[in-house]
Amino acid sequence: MSASLKNDRLIRALLRQPVDQTPVWIMRQAGRYLPEYRQVRQRAGDFMTLCKTPELACEVTLQPLQRFPLDAAILFSDILTIPDAMGLGLSIVENEGPRFSWPVRSKSDIDKLSVPDPETDLRYVMDAVRLISAELDGKVPLIGFAGSPWTIGTYMLEGGPSKDYSLAKGMLYEEPALMHKLMDVLTRSITDYLNAQIQAGVQIVMIFDSWGGVLSRAAYKEFSLNYMQQIIQGLNTDVGGKKVPVILFTKGGGLWLEEMAGAGCDAIGVDWTIELGDARKLVGGSVAIQGNLDPAVLYSSPETIRQHVSRLLESYGSGNGHVFNLGHGIQPKIDPENVAVLVESVHELSKPYHA
Amino acid sequence: MSASLKNDRLIRALLRQPVDQTPVWIMRQAGRYLPEYRQVRQRAGDFMTLCKTPELACEVTLQPLQRFPLDAAILFSDILTIPDAMGLGLSIVENEGPRFSWPVRSKSDIDKLSVPDPETDLRYVMDAVRLISAELDGKVPLIGFAGSPWTIGTYMLEGGPSKDYSLAKGMLYEEPALMHKLMDVLTRSITDYLNAQIQAGVQIVMIFDSWGGVLSRAAYKEFSLNYMQQIIQGLNTDVGGKKVPVILFTKGGGLWLEEMAGAGCDAIGVDWTIELGDARKLVGGSVAIQGNLDPAVLYSSPETIRQHVSRLLESYGSGNGHVFNLGHGIQPKIDPENVAVLVESVHELSKPYHA
Repeated sequence: MSASLKNDRLIRALLRQPVDQTPVWIMRQAGRYLPEYRQVRQRAGDFMTLCKTPELACEVTLQPLQRFPLDAAILFSDILTIPDAMGLGLSIVENEGPRFSWPVRSKSDIDKLSVPDPETDLRYVMDAVRLISAELDGKVPLIGFAGSPWTIGTYMLEGGPSKDYSLAKGMLYEEPALMHKLMDVLTRSITDYLNAQIQAGVQIVMIFDSWGGVLSRAAYKEFSLNYMQQIIQGLNTDVGGKKVPVILFTKGGGLWLEEMAGAGCDAIGVDWTIELGDARKLVGGSVAIQGNLDPAVLYSSPETIRQHVSRLLESYGSGNGHVFNLGHGIQPKIDPENVAVLVESVHELSKPYHA
Repeated sequence: MSASLKNDRLIRALLRQPVDQTPVWIMRQAGRYLPEYRQVRQRAGDFMTLCKTPELACEVTLQPLQRFPLDAAILFSDILTIPDAMGLGLSIVENEGPRFSWPVRSKSDIDKLSVPDPETDLRYVMDAVRLISAELDGKVPLIGFAGSPWTIGTYMLEGGPSKDYSLAKGMLYEEPALMHKLMDVLTRSITDYLNAQIQAGVQIVMIFDSWGGVLSRAAYKEFSLNYMQQIIQGLNTDVGGKKVPVILFTKGGGLWLEEMAGAGCDAIGVDWTIELGDARKLVGGSVAIQGNLDPAVLYSSPETIRQHVSRLLESYGSGNGHVFNLGHGIQPKIDPENVAVLVESVHELSKPYHA
């Protein structure tokens, strides 16, 4: 589908192959901290129109690459496109977050859910992938993504952001069979969705488990990791002999890295609460590690940013299998100049570790 | 000061001495889930008036003990009484959280801060302790508490709750010396405050580090744990030959339990993301463990609650050093009947582990 890659540093690092310098990309790199993003966002009117218009999604996906020598593009979209396609009526409320007009509240609501067809119900996503892929023309790889079943499911049950996940956890603890049913339909939907993204041209996929970290270890394994493992098993990651690496990210999952590494993924994203060197030791070289600068470091000066980049690279140490990223999405108030400092520092300071 | 204890189960467990059954208390046990609390809260008008009126603080502190056979009372107060006494003007906004009229924003703001005198500036807290102590008459021990320097400091800098701690972390990363200065004045204030609570009659103290878990390991050690350790070292925990146990609780601190155990505390509070048995192994019997039921389990049925209590007790296993609690505060929508089930289950089901 895509031309052969001019910069395959990220794919190589995810597969734990040698690279010349540590690849870097940034979660939410196409986002509100960029004035040119805010312009397109305003033109679009609302967030979902931006997601649903392939030309605009393509435009904002490519914006950060025009500014910074990033090693990947990531599809501009939202983790809640699937429940939207299921008919729950998604809108994004400014400064509040996602909101569903018809949240899932009962067994009959769950019974009614069916697996969306990616090329019809979510065609705008696949069209955006094809457009971005063509525009990128192999300059850097394109990352596709989906939310995890647990994370998407909590939003569907709560109807929006939640402080205590009382509805989702209430169901998990009291009606586990019903929760499994919801996780199952989401797992099948996400598998199809990611496979369609791969077919449309993404060269890497990432599963975002934003809320796995609010669970107990037992509940995490049963209701989140288990289903992410099923998704990974269902992915067609061999594209013409080339492997599509899979990244698994559970925010707050630092205690569960060994289990995550056993789920069949190629890399694990970690937040900044765990030392990078400890994370590397825990997974014993079985997967690559992506992370993990505290996004708040970007509020500081170029000198401080360089120091923290240097410390992180040292913590990981020499050898393969590190992808530099923040430990969570970049925040809207960050100065883009500081992102330039970050990206350049990673490339420059990481060279000795790959000599 | 206080009469000798009729129920010293909690103190014994915190000091890892044998008990007949596992003691249990609940974070925020005096709180909004109790209709009788909501009545007093309404009578008081606002939250801080409730805190600042010793008779009312005493009344709500004792309410949960009239309903449930809990093994401790915990002083009804707020972790932000200290910055309020420093002159920042605290109010609690319904459904939003704390708000300071004069947050700390500059070096000169920090320079102006001075250590409050507990018996004058925070006399209402000490009067509440004396009143509760007299009313309890040794029925169960009274727990005193304070927020950690880092947690209190973040509120002082942000002015209220924060999503990303941009101001606090901005200072931590960019002006570490200034942040250390703030932590230092808070450490001295908290030490005096807890010592005054002990003198007024509390028999256990707990330090709540609600936001330590948003830091990297290095920043946690330097800006949070380090200061909590200084506080513990400064406490007069020998009251007439009786030891006042110290509990340390960092929400989201599951990755750092070994370091926490080395800070001089007697017990560590843990949230539900870590297995209780793993937590016990990590600290190697050097401290007691308090926790760690997911508060959301209380949304479920009595039968499910009993199952989860049983699993937690089994995870900890036989022997000393376990205090049962939730992994975080109880939520306002919980049915008090479920709390009764919880407390009774802990006492009943734990007996075999202490045989």
